Amino acid sequence: MTPVKVAIIGFGTIGSGVAKLLLEHGDRIARRAGRPVELVRIVDKDLVRPRNVSVPRQLLTDDIDSVIKDPSISIAVELIGGLEPARSIVLSLLEHGKDVVTANKALLAEHGPELFEAARRLGRSIAFEASVAGGIPIIAAIGESLTANEILSIHAILNGTSNYILTQMEEQGQEYAAALAEAQRLGYAEANPAMDVSGADAAQKLAILAQLAFGAEVNWKEIPRVGIDTVQADDMRYATELGYHIKLLAVAERVDGELELHVSPTLVKKGTPLGEVRGAYNAIRIVGDAVGRVFFHGLGAGQMPTASAVVADVIDTAVGRAAITFRTLRLWSNDGPKVRLRNPDESRSRFYLRFNVQDRPGVLAEIAGILGRNQISIASVIQHETEEEAEGIVPLVIMTHAAAEGPMRRAMEQIDQLPVVRPGSVWMRVRD
Amino acid sequence: MTPVKVAIIGFGTIGSGVAKLLLEHGDRIARRAGRPVELVRIVDKDLVRPRNVSVPRQLLTDDIDSVIKDPSISIAVELIGGLEPARSIVLSLLEHGKDVVTANKALLAEHGPELFEAARRLGRSIAFEASVAGGIPIIAAIGESLTANEILSIHAILNGTSNYILTQMEEQGQEYAAALAEAQRLGYAEANPAMDVSGADAAQKLAILAQLAFGAEVNWKEIPRVGIDTVQADDMRYATELGYHIKLLAVAERVDGELELHVSPTLVKKGTPLGEVRGAYNAIRIVGDAVGRVFFHGLGAGQMPTASAVVADVIDTAVGRAAITFRTLRLWSNDGPKVRLRNPDESRSRFYLRFNVQDRPGVLAEIAGILGRNQISIASVIQHETEEEAEGIVPLVIMTHAAAEGPMRRAMEQIDQLPVVRPGSVWMRVRD
Repeated sequence: MTPVKVAIIGFGTIGSGVAKLLLEHGDRIARRAGRPVELVRIVDKDLVRPRNVSVPRQLLTDDIDSVIKDPSISIAVELIGGLEPARSIVLSLLEHGKDVVTANKALLAEHGPELFEAARRLGRSIAFEASVAGGIPIIAAIGESLTANEILSIHAILNGTSNYILTQMEEQGQEYAAALAEAQRLGYAEANPAMDVSGADAAQKLAILAQLAFGAEVNWKEIPRVGIDTVQADDMRYATELGYHIKLLAVAERVDGELELHVSPTLVKKGTPLGEVRGAYNAIRIVGDAVGRVFFHGLGAGQMPTASAVVADVIDTAVGRAAITFRTLRLWSNDGPKVRLRNPDESRSRFYLRFNVQDRPGVLAEIAGILGRNQISIASVIQHETEEEAEGIVPLVIMTHAAAEGPMRRAMEQIDQLPVVRPGSVWMRVRD
Repeated sequence: MTPVKVAIIGFGTIGSGVAKLLLEHGDRIARRAGRPVELVRIVDKDLVRPRNVSVPRQLLTDDIDSVIKDPSISIAVELIGGLEPARSIVLSLLEHGKDVVTANKALLAEHGPELFEAARRLGRSIAFEASVAGGIPIIAAIGESLTANEILSIHAILNGTSNYILTQMEEQGQEYAAALAEAQRLGYAEANPAMDVSGADAAQKLAILAQLAFGAEVNWKEIPRVGIDTVQADDMRYATELGYHIKLLAVAERVDGELELHVSPTLVKKGTPLGEVRGAYNAIRIVGDAVGRVFFHGLGAGQMPTASAVVADVIDTAVGRAAITFRTLRLWSNDGPKVRLRNPDESRSRFYLRFNVQDRPGVLAEIAGILGRNQISIASVIQHETEEEAEGIVPLVIMTHAAAEGPMRRAMEQIDQLPVVRPGSVWMRVRD
């Protein structure tokens, strides 16, 4: 059969991995696509930097038009990352009749509606398995395998860097800054880790999953999020004592017909599949009304896991499956049922609270009183006798029963105004 | 758009679940299939038995020809189970131009080559996501999402009944017979549990996965298997003491260019995702050369999880994706590369051994001597002082370093002939 011709735009880590698979495992891929899949061009501004794949020189170019204007190329893999020029290039590729495969979560979370609408109008497809959770086939699972279900909830660890840092903090007893530095030294965190540790990366991925699973039209910036840079070694220790791990949890859950969305460090029960996810792994727990609970675990980033997802999409596109999926999913389109976002104040959860208080009689009564007046009931309290009290200040840890976030925040504000409470109060969601 | 017409053959538990989804969630399914999916006939010999779904009377018939000979029906869902008449009916359905969706693992494990060849010849498709691991989309994962990979290994818990019983034995300290009776009382095990507890059901599913992932042409009966009916409460206790859970593990692994296949109760390290699978769940750990390790966990049986997989296949077939997948997978065909099965004697693992020995000097030396002469080296030994020795007989537990199964079996035979060793020696694989 005639080969299908593919171009890679963006020759960084993932691009090199994709080139490696296409060039070194052509037989395997041809067998699975039913025809040869030929890598004919790689576009990047930097043609000199060494990569861990050897590529025939004539494939390399810095001229994007050599792909856009070549009608023989039918699939373009966008691996530039970021918003521009990625957005303009993808639009141009679609307009010139190419199907697009992308790993660019930021692009989809920001410009998904525009790009998907353009692809639909032009009769092209966009495949994006690699944009969320790398090697875990979560896009296919939700978009194809679980289509008989109404999805009820998604609880996910979507940022491997954060999970690596949290695991280090827990296992080594390190503070956040030390664990981050270690992660940077080992290449698990970037020099500028802001997107990862702030929860922004996880929020972008959650926005894509929420669109796919719930038809939610949400800009990722509107998803309430707290990063792991707020987590302290003290909280790790208390979480352990209480029987929990702290995870950066991304949640999308149907409640009373509305959709609750948030990303935040959360105490997750030990011994549960999500709780036990360690190191740079991702994991996703989905509940569907027919299938029940399904759990996926794997590498969410890295060269070859991500390239594995990209090349699966290339094969899907080559065989025609991606076109069907794209047509039936109708992502970011106006015809599916819409779901309303839930007011974060109404989000209910158990909460972990930590206060730094003066070690004197009546403090617990004052705090418990404020919680009670805000309808928050206490499940357990930890206040240890400490030998090394810093100026008579001791930590007070409270686990609440389920309460709404609005009243909990109001209670925290009131508690923080008590003269006996020092700054630095902490709250986190709890997931049993 | 014109509706696609579907018939269900076999109106048991799964059939009722599929009818429920198609009849009660028609809107959802039509949206995802891009057209209405209309259930037009349900065939069963027993039209009287009550089911937990209300079905228009005119859909029900005991006449299979009313499906086979109705050219307006394009998708037939085979849920009869077993070999005959399921095999003849599927062949007849294919010959009459219907695409087939099936949950019948026994049928595929036994007659896969014949049925797939017939479907290919007739230009039809067979979709079978529900045949392995129920609600876990493992067929799609291997056949579509991981196609860029060479699969290196599959380690799986594929029988929920066995896992439920093993979990009960561990958590309640029950013997096998008591845990089985409890599982039967609660509906987790059938009156005749032979297929589940003997490992046969898991071997059938493993045969399907091995064909899909490795192109292995293996009859499930040739897969070496040991059932959970050999596991004793004593072994559970020792496993716990050593830091392991006992799981009925199905393994397909590439070793030196050959494929190792077996199903057996195995000591699986605590804290690992596979080790922590409890109750009636299934789980699959796959390693691909690009993606690394991916782990799936969910309900492997039950009405609605299985129906979820069946209806996903119906939608896949209706939109045309199943036809493409079926064509490109070329299962049980003669064109993929073939893999040779590894001689079980060469299979290497650490082993757990338990002997009942006379409590007298020199016994350990004799046993250790035999192991040593068979090149099996000992990693650790447990021999407790017991107060309630039965006639001077005590258990001796040995964990070995990695050894081949052939020499291990030979050593066991020699040890069993020692006068100081009583009958009932036990060996199990260990997975760290």
